[in-house]
Amino acid sequence: MLDFTHDPQATSWVASAQAAGGDFPIQNLPFGIFALAGSAERPRGGVAIGDQVLDLAHLAAARVLEGPAQAACEVAAGPTLNAFMALGQPAWRALRHGLFRLLQADAPAALRDAVAACLVPQAGVTMKLPVEVRNYTDFYTSVHHAMNMGNLVRPDDPLTANFKWLPIAYHGRASSVVVSGTDFHRPMGQARPPGAAAPVYGPCSRLDFELELGFFVGRGTRLGQPLKLSEARERLFGLCLLNDWSARDHQFWEMDPLGPFLGKNFCTSISPWVVTMEALAPYRLPFERPATDPAPLPYLDAPQERADGRLDIQLEVRLQSATARERGLPGDRITATSFRHQYWTVAQMLAQHTVNGCNLAPGDLMGTGTISGPTAGEAGAIVELSRGGALPVPLPATGEERRFLQDGDAVILRGWCEQPGAARIGFGSCQGTVLPALG
Amino acid sequence: MLDFTHDPQATSWVASAQAAGGDFPIQNLPFGIFALAGSAERPRGGVAIGDQVLDLAHLAAARVLEGPAQAACEVAAGPTLNAFMALGQPAWRALRHGLFRLLQADAPAALRDAVAACLVPQAGVTMKLPVEVRNYTDFYTSVHHAMNMGNLVRPDDPLTANFKWLPIAYHGRASSVVVSGTDFHRPMGQARPPGAAAPVYGPCSRLDFELELGFFVGRGTRLGQPLKLSEARERLFGLCLLNDWSARDHQFWEMDPLGPFLGKNFCTSISPWVVTMEALAPYRLPFERPATDPAPLPYLDAPQERADGRLDIQLEVRLQSATARERGLPGDRITATSFRHQYWTVAQMLAQHTVNGCNLAPGDLMGTGTISGPTAGEAGAIVELSRGGALPVPLPATGEERRFLQDGDAVILRGWCEQPGAARIGFGSCQGTVLPALG
Repeated sequence: MLDFTHDPQATSWVASAQAAGGDFPIQNLPFGIFALAGSAERPRGGVAIGDQVLDLAHLAAARVLEGPAQAACEVAAGPTLNAFMALGQPAWRALRHGLFRLLQADAPAALRDAVAACLVPQAGVTMKLPVEVRNYTDFYTSVHHAMNMGNLVRPDDPLTANFKWLPIAYHGRASSVVVSGTDFHRPMGQARPPGAAAPVYGPCSRLDFELELGFFVGRGTRLGQPLKLSEARERLFGLCLLNDWSARDHQFWEMDPLGPFLGKNFCTSISPWVVTMEALAPYRLPFERPATDPAPLPYLDAPQERADGRLDIQLEVRLQSATARERGLPGDRITATSFRHQYWTVAQMLAQHTVNGCNLAPGDLMGTGTISGPTAGEAGAIVELSRGGALPVPLPATGEERRFLQDGDAVILRGWCEQPGAARIGFGSCQGTVLPALG
Repeated sequence: MLDFTHDPQATSWVASAQAAGGDFPIQNLPFGIFALAGSAERPRGGVAIGDQVLDLAHLAAARVLEGPAQAACEVAAGPTLNAFMALGQPAWRALRHGLFRLLQADAPAALRDAVAACLVPQAGVTMKLPVEVRNYTDFYTSVHHAMNMGNLVRPDDPLTANFKWLPIAYHGRASSVVVSGTDFHRPMGQARPPGAAAPVYGPCSRLDFELELGFFVGRGTRLGQPLKLSEARERLFGLCLLNDWSARDHQFWEMDPLGPFLGKNFCTSISPWVVTMEALAPYRLPFERPATDPAPLPYLDAPQERADGRLDIQLEVRLQSATARERGLPGDRITATSFRHQYWTVAQMLAQHTVNGCNLAPGDLMGTGTISGPTAGEAGAIVELSRGGALPVPLPATGEERRFLQDGDAVILRGWCEQPGAARIGFGSCQGTVLPALG
């Protein structure tokens, strides 16, 4: 539902919010948890505006908001966003509307001064995980990714029979979800080399990234109570970028018959700012499928989803090698696509997750699965770009190439939305660097 | 390591601790979280002794323990056992030794009176989940279960190539782990009937139980730091019974390629009392494998594990139909086996889980996977007992039979240990009843 907070002409008295190509104009207002660098003050909720963070704890203390917006601000100021997510859509919207009024260009001068005193430069803060991740589920909902992977492992029949009938998912590891900027060691583990009879133990030799979006559950559900598709959308709080780092050699040896485990659970990175479903409203598209595909079963179908269930979120991945970093280069864009190609919508994923009565808690994290688009250059993992390691992926900035990730490689995900008649808003970035194995 | 707390001749002044066939003699001392029925007092830690619960909050207040035992008791008295598990083995042992001295038959009369004031009958309490489950992993480590399942789905090649090389596992859903006695509704979901081209939505038609043990992580680990096998044992706090309820029709439709999800995550039941590794010390056995099987890779091999890595825990499953319950009958024992047949040890499972640096948190729950023994009557799931539904499983108590679970069926797991020269200790029970689908 579009309202005054989506007006593309709106501006803020925070000058950097109007920066060309910036991620955080007044139409965005994403939530995160930050700590002041070098301060002993506890981490707390903030909102990104331009190159600043609006400190919600200070703002709550200033009492410049009123009623439900003030109440929501007090909760969002906490050490994680779980409690704020639990409040539900009316509270989220009240706070968004309140913050917009305080930050817009024509806010009264007295209010403006009070709010300006609550701003801290993003350069002076350390971002934390936005939530305490209690449960993490990863879906598998890009048909192009599923086809690319299927073509590598079973080219005669690449797409599993269930793919077009349900949003496939598996449980991931909550404890190893980290915030962007957390580096990790190349994992050790077991893999069976091609053609070998026995496996070997050693550092991962086929390390990969996965370009995904993460989404957060707002109000939870009770065990035994399925969520109707028509109710699912209002349970979604917002989205972030997610990199589901993968050890392909370990994964493909271990996953028969119960799926990925150690090939995934050594590290999952997410971006620190959560872009709300409210902010994403202008970038919705109709849900379309080829006429030859099966119609969703009724529990996965609703008029609202057909009307605008898809989100057009632009995505890109940069790979910055150690050499590029030493030379002060940003690295190379190795893939770019949009979430609009995804086969299932985020609301369908939530409905599927709860169809059997599985309960959701506020702040639960879900991944969309790797997001690959319809053409070869839109693949969301290096194993797809390199066709299982067969083709080198060029890195023109330094003249290097990659079949899988090397030590020192940084992978940087970015996402943003642009539509005619709407502002440009962005997700910031999600990055991590591969450190050498410790084993 | 055996000590005075394992002396099979030891007795307690709590008379019911000496009941023949009882689960909770003084050699056991399992931990749990209980609430007084009808009381507003908060749930807190307790220890089972005979038919009583020793209230650790009252005991801590009575200050009849000293030094590390008193300190540990204060932590174990909390609303969950996570913090107590985080303390580590010296603290756990100090409290066990202290409790044993207070409860043994020749404890001084003054101490005895103080401790007696902290006892409440088990009949008057409600048991809660022993921990806040932050992460739940389920292994797949019974070779007999794997063969039984493999024979149903791919009889030419029933055992996957990786089974004898690593303890296979997948992540489960933490939010839907419930304590014994919590009933649940038959799940709704999608399945493809045999021979059909398209799936259908409806109540599960192949509902099953899985006989498992659960084990709890004590002190956690840091991300990136693998646990050596020789260090894994001291990180284990204890074990419980676990029933990984399974919707086989939903599971087998959804699990290709990423493993089980909705087929499992609607409900997982655990028994409320956690039997400590310390209490289980007398029931260890050497780790033996057929000479034709591969030796474990070095990171999964250690002299201590070979010497006594296995646990001889006797297990049984009873099925009590609604008809049996109406007639006041306990139902039928439909399977019985021992954990000693398991292919991988619990310490090997922990070492495998962390080999890639995946971090563990105190109180994390792991399931062993279904425990099936070498003969047909020792299968730990009804899908194995009924050969995929082909053979009816008789229920002689009522003259009924089952291929899968029906509404109203209660499944009751029990476990206990007996060895020459050691006391008999037990796990209590883990039970749940199938309620009709809500859909």
